[in-house]
Amino acid sequence: MTLISELTTLLGAGGVLTGTDVTSRAAGVWRADPLDALAIARPRSTSEVAGVLKLCHAEGVSVVTQGGLTGLVHGADATPEQLILSLERMRSIESIDPIQRTATVEAGVTLQALQEAAEEHQLAFPLDLGARGTATVGGNAATNAGGNRVIRYGMMRDMVLGVEAVLADGTVVSSMNHLIKNNAGYDLKQLFLGSEGTLGVITRLVLRLREAPSSQNVAFVAFADFPSVPRMLKRVDRELGGALSAYEVLWKNFYRLVTEAPASNQPPLAADYPYYALIEAQGNNDKIDKQRFEEVLEGALEDGDIVDAVIAQSSTERQKLWSIRDDVEQTFRYGPPVVFDVSLPIAAMETYVAKISAALDEQLDKAICWVFGHLGDGNLHIIVQTEAGDAPQSRETIERTIYGPLEKIGGSVSAEHGIGFEKKPYLHLSRSATEIGLMQNLKAALDPQGILNPGKIIDAPQSALR
Amino acid sequence: MTLISELTTLLGAGGVLTGTDVTSRAAGVWRADPLDALAIARPRSTSEVAGVLKLCHAEGVSVVTQGGLTGLVHGADATPEQLILSLERMRSIESIDPIQRTATVEAGVTLQALQEAAEEHQLAFPLDLGARGTATVGGNAATNAGGNRVIRYGMMRDMVLGVEAVLADGTVVSSMNHLIKNNAGYDLKQLFLGSEGTLGVITRLVLRLREAPSSQNVAFVAFADFPSVPRMLKRVDRELGGALSAYEVLWKNFYRLVTEAPASNQPPLAADYPYYALIEAQGNNDKIDKQRFEEVLEGALEDGDIVDAVIAQSSTERQKLWSIRDDVEQTFRYGPPVVFDVSLPIAAMETYVAKISAALDEQLDKAICWVFGHLGDGNLHIIVQTEAGDAPQSRETIERTIYGPLEKIGGSVSAEHGIGFEKKPYLHLSRSATEIGLMQNLKAALDPQGILNPGKIIDAPQSALR
Repeated sequence: MTLISELTTLLGAGGVLTGTDVTSRAAGVWRADPLDALAIARPRSTSEVAGVLKLCHAEGVSVVTQGGLTGLVHGADATPEQLILSLERMRSIESIDPIQRTATVEAGVTLQALQEAAEEHQLAFPLDLGARGTATVGGNAATNAGGNRVIRYGMMRDMVLGVEAVLADGTVVSSMNHLIKNNAGYDLKQLFLGSEGTLGVITRLVLRLREAPSSQNVAFVAFADFPSVPRMLKRVDRELGGALSAYEVLWKNFYRLVTEAPASNQPPLAADYPYYALIEAQGNNDKIDKQRFEEVLEGALEDGDIVDAVIAQSSTERQKLWSIRDDVEQTFRYGPPVVFDVSLPIAAMETYVAKISAALDEQLDKAICWVFGHLGDGNLHIIVQTEAGDAPQSRETIERTIYGPLEKIGGSVSAEHGIGFEKKPYLHLSRSATEIGLMQNLKAALDPQGILNPGKIIDAPQSALR
Repeated sequence: MTLISELTTLLGAGGVLTGTDVTSRAAGVWRADPLDALAIARPRSTSEVAGVLKLCHAEGVSVVTQGGLTGLVHGADATPEQLILSLERMRSIESIDPIQRTATVEAGVTLQALQEAAEEHQLAFPLDLGARGTATVGGNAATNAGGNRVIRYGMMRDMVLGVEAVLADGTVVSSMNHLIKNNAGYDLKQLFLGSEGTLGVITRLVLRLREAPSSQNVAFVAFADFPSVPRMLKRVDRELGGALSAYEVLWKNFYRLVTEAPASNQPPLAADYPYYALIEAQGNNDKIDKQRFEEVLEGALEDGDIVDAVIAQSSTERQKLWSIRDDVEQTFRYGPPVVFDVSLPIAAMETYVAKISAALDEQLDKAICWVFGHLGDGNLHIIVQTEAGDAPQSRETIERTIYGPLEKIGGSVSAEHGIGFEKKPYLHLSRSATEIGLMQNLKAALDPQGILNPGKIIDAPQSALR
């Protein structure tokens, strides 16, 4: 094992894990199967990452970069002959600049650590998702993470100003831009954002911070029918004048699931409406923001855009409303679910959900289809349960049913989780052969030997050497 | 001229212009020199664009794509042996979807035509710049245009959801995504945004629209010193709770230039403060928005962040304040100016401007350096006048003086205008040799023969055939 000893020389004691130090780790934070890989390399700097890649490139060993392992699409899975590159020893928050409103960090920093560091300067890093305590900002960047507040602040791609990345051959590309506007040549960082570690390894980032909001207003509302849902979205987006920060919709059966026993949350509204939404606004003026929020909801009630509403009157009440939306674990009650994060035009959603529900009913025993999500962004989470659970054959039927109709309506098989291995068979439903060919062209240009996270998102281009 | 006759067969009568039909046109809307090129091809569809590129690719003829010719960096200049590809016959606004809040357009649509079409649906396309009546959205996309409201809505890159583009060999890449969130594989549109026509020709776009704001508040404020300027930016960004839409700063001599005769604008504030800003907020509630805007300014006055302020009380007054900021033509008074659009960290601005002003004074006769710009985005416009005008030698001295200090402070030689030919000699100050090498790698992968807008942004990669 020349590579292992070379890596050990490079990274020092503790820099390379092998044997049970690898297999005693889980393959993901929500998974029971163990990691299996040649070794885990744990560099402490960009130059050490570059050294690892140079060695692997020379010896033709594939490299799978791992962040917090909170991904849901098998995007960081490794095989026994691949090297895992973990950024777990690169967790430094190098600096926070309160004037420029940027954070400069190593890629292994957790999202939560960054959020908390920003808060100390009365700033906020607005990306937010359930796995914040474990997910790393490097992983967030490599997968272009989304989450709850995309409607206001965009996705991770929109929050990254600069990136330092290492190419397959060990070349360090340092594009640590701190500026909001920079049109000096190609925007190279885009190559590494959302490409799931297949084009380079992100080692450091410059992230845009925002002034921290000090007021929050949250309501739960009920709708009489689906057309009211986008109408209300337009209304709050317009009338809250830039303050809207979340618009999360729940289909009736999901609302009931998470507000009726054995779930611990109490229903804030009667359970017989077809659709519900959690609406959040963030601002910085308690009095004015609350007044405006109430006026907007009152207007919507008067006009019939919503038929019932409750507004949280305290921080505790706000958390209670959010915990209804977030209690996704209730879907585990009936056995292992199959989880989706599709996006599609809002106008197509009602018909789409009816269609997939009917098709699941027809094909599978005791199929239940829970639907909720970031409707303001066109993103629905769909969770399917059947008597057969996620057994392979049942899973394939479910996947074909959920993904199939998306092609025709211009939907995406992944709004935010990415493609990884899991969704690769369905990528062609959302992207044309020409687009996939261009992706392979890029892969061949940046990683001609195909050693970076091979087989994720796309198959190896024909021109790749291995 | 086989190519011309093949193009004429492809595009029909009127599809190809030659001779005086070419040379009777100006090389740019603000330029006196004529266009000079092999011919101007005027396709009417993506498939015609593909046909033009296939022919040129086969015959090794370079192609320069032109939009509204409002660029400032010689990014669309052609030579007599190059073909100009003009999108002037692709001006269709194909559809506007008020639910999804998207516009699907051909690339030759002017920015203003799109803005007006959006307004008919109570929507807004928030990109805005002085050349709106002539600049095309295809050109805005190819150059990643910025403008006045980047602080709230981002640059053109942030408003493009989908792109249809034609590669150098005529391959059509249709990525007409309509979704805010789509993580299905590499985000290919990024290749074409801001790459100034060197990687592909954008023919159609899907653009994100916003709910139209109905309230506007504008103030002109004065500062006692530079540290107050970013302090006030943070204050208004925080306290206006998402409504801040412009933060335009004027250095004292520019303020005087545009508010004292022979300029037609009256000074809204006394002329003896070192810095001024125009601050704008957009919202949708006349009463609440105005109240909040006034409260924020009053608080800033009390705390000393600003030392004087005037708030526009009508639409006419708002326009008057904006016309002060926009009266850049006053700088032409003393002969041809040299114009810059650098960006740099806000904390470095005061020292930087003092340094370049002193250096210009020292090196050139009667040098004047006007400074103003989108400070909220880190973007300063600098306009330099000297007795020698923009004569080559004087121009080079000016450019070296303005660009030189940017390297050390992490600034950019172009915040929004792009690189084109004009700034190519200075690109290395903002981007490393490795970054430029990666740009050349991309260029070679997408345009191996180097026929698309050759020599713009970067020199031809060594691997290119021509």
